[in-house]
Amino acid sequence: MDASFRRTYTNHLPALKADLLAGKRLALSKCITLIESTREDDQVAAGTLIEEVIGNTGNSIRIGITGVPGVGKSTFIEQFGTLLTEVGRRVAVLSVDPTSIRSKGAILGDKTRMHSLSKNPKAFVRPSAAGANLGGVANTTRECILLCEAAGYDVIIVETVGVGQSETLVKEMVDYFLLLMLAGGGDELQGIKRGIMEMADHLLINKADGANLALAEKAAKDYENALHLFPASESQWKVPVGICSALENTGLHKVWQSLQSFQSVTQESGFFSENRRLQNCQWFHQRLRTQLLDYFFGEPDFKGKIKQKEDQIKLGKSSVRKAVDDLLQSQIHKIK
Amino acid sequence: MDASFRRTYTNHLPALKADLLAGKRLALSKCITLIESTREDDQVAAGTLIEEVIGNTGNSIRIGITGVPGVGKSTFIEQFGTLLTEVGRRVAVLSVDPTSIRSKGAILGDKTRMHSLSKNPKAFVRPSAAGANLGGVANTTRECILLCEAAGYDVIIVETVGVGQSETLVKEMVDYFLLLMLAGGGDELQGIKRGIMEMADHLLINKADGANLALAEKAAKDYENALHLFPASESQWKVPVGICSALENTGLHKVWQSLQSFQSVTQESGFFSENRRLQNCQWFHQRLRTQLLDYFFGEPDFKGKIKQKEDQIKLGKSSVRKAVDDLLQSQIHKIK
Repeated sequence: MDASFRRTYTNHLPALKADLLAGKRLALSKCITLIESTREDDQVAAGTLIEEVIGNTGNSIRIGITGVPGVGKSTFIEQFGTLLTEVGRRVAVLSVDPTSIRSKGAILGDKTRMHSLSKNPKAFVRPSAAGANLGGVANTTRECILLCEAAGYDVIIVETVGVGQSETLVKEMVDYFLLLMLAGGGDELQGIKRGIMEMADHLLINKADGANLALAEKAAKDYENALHLFPASESQWKVPVGICSALENTGLHKVWQSLQSFQSVTQESGFFSENRRLQNCQWFHQRLRTQLLDYFFGEPDFKGKIKQKEDQIKLGKSSVRKAVDDLLQSQIHKIK
Repeated sequence: MDASFRRTYTNHLPALKADLLAGKRLALSKCITLIESTREDDQVAAGTLIEEVIGNTGNSIRIGITGVPGVGKSTFIEQFGTLLTEVGRRVAVLSVDPTSIRSKGAILGDKTRMHSLSKNPKAFVRPSAAGANLGGVANTTRECILLCEAAGYDVIIVETVGVGQSETLVKEMVDYFLLLMLAGGGDELQGIKRGIMEMADHLLINKADGANLALAEKAAKDYENALHLFPASESQWKVPVGICSALENTGLHKVWQSLQSFQSVTQESGFFSENRRLQNCQWFHQRLRTQLLDYFFGEPDFKGKIKQKEDQIKLGKSSVRKAVDDLLQSQIHKIK
């Protein structure tokens, strides 16, 4: 980033904010780059920006989409997102990718994966957020959601990329969690997905087309029966089990109907806003932990002490427990 | 726990330590209960105990075993553990179970799952460690390994229970990571397991018996070919792909041979001890983070401030970022 562009942040924050609230895509992109920046002055500007637009956020439905690789998430989001723009919605697509931590950057090609949606003037597709760790990625994604809302996007889709830890993170930042599945996964696969099935507000068997249609219908029945064994969700929402073919563009309207029905039912019951309040509290605690640790581990004095203890542990001269106790006692003494 | 038993810890630590080093199973059980205790005085005693026996630890091979539910982990450990006792080894079986966090206790029936092994005088089977969070569970399990070693167990098996986050934790505390698999898992299953396959030091197709034998041999060939596509591991160890039937007790001797070969190759190259040093460093950093956070969140003054900020966030009066920044500024001011 060159110096002239950087000055845009610090000096022209009011203009950037006005453009964001006017729904300008370039401003939204710049704002996201700002909150992702690791520079201290950028972080101060990001704090001001977020605090100033907080009153313009929240007015959207936030949808999480997950499923194993190969289930057809990209094709689904491409088609479903296009449908949403056709019914007058503005759609933002974000993603959470644990593997982007190691590579320290967004995965290339995220934009090109959703070729037609990313060129749609009513849609905004952003590659995975960067971050030093999973907590950092989650935090940035949550602030991206707020910025998209401030820019007037009223459907936010957060996709999990890869598998493993990201499902829980995404579940904690969305209103509606959609699990894409395939017909014909074995028992072992179902075992792996059981924890994630329990998080889902909607099960959707994709690739219900051609010779696979009958299999998909059978699988939907099976899952519907299985769901009866689960305890009722807190939202009292009856989790629908549907089939669709993103490729042939069938079954997607029904998903949108379910989503609207979920929104009206849970808004009436109060669950919708109560859930968001709880999610914000969780986020607050997560960020507090991350920032506390960042503060301590950033102290040069503490860093030196840590290095000493590391050496003792490597030589077998100290147990891990004693090394930690010693370090904390010296640090806590300093605090008191 | 009654008061008289508790006094055993604080007053009779030298006797407990002597019994532990003499390999008495009851003493080992008591020591594990001590390190798992959440009482402050117990934790002080636990610290003393661990520090005093640290010189008696490390003399074992630590094996991690994972695989999807239904792969036959319990049967495998029962048979493999028995084999190890027959060749003169003393075997301890521990497990890491993320779900035990919620239930705040060990899963019942862990002992009865390995019926014959748990009655074997040369074996020690312990249910899953308890802990307030995944980091706590991992920490307790690592200290359990040390206590088992101090008691003279020279093969430590750490099993993952459930699926998801525990594989990485277990990989970080063992020398050798064994992945049990089934023949006939679909492509989707392989997708899910790819990250875990890359961690494995040994792939083993279980249930290679009866009509399934030919399928298992075919799967082993396929995995062997697939492994050629992976980058060489840091240990330079060529990951074997084998088949076995825990039920029919076939193929287990070969696993033990591979394990011994791994140990001698990596001890000669220096990888074995270097890897343990790195693991101890990782553990140290994890524990340091956990303990720092526990200290802060335990302060009554801080707790009150957190509550205030929570209320502001719930009412939409503050962004998460600003609430965290305010809290840290007040706390850091106190430190400086």
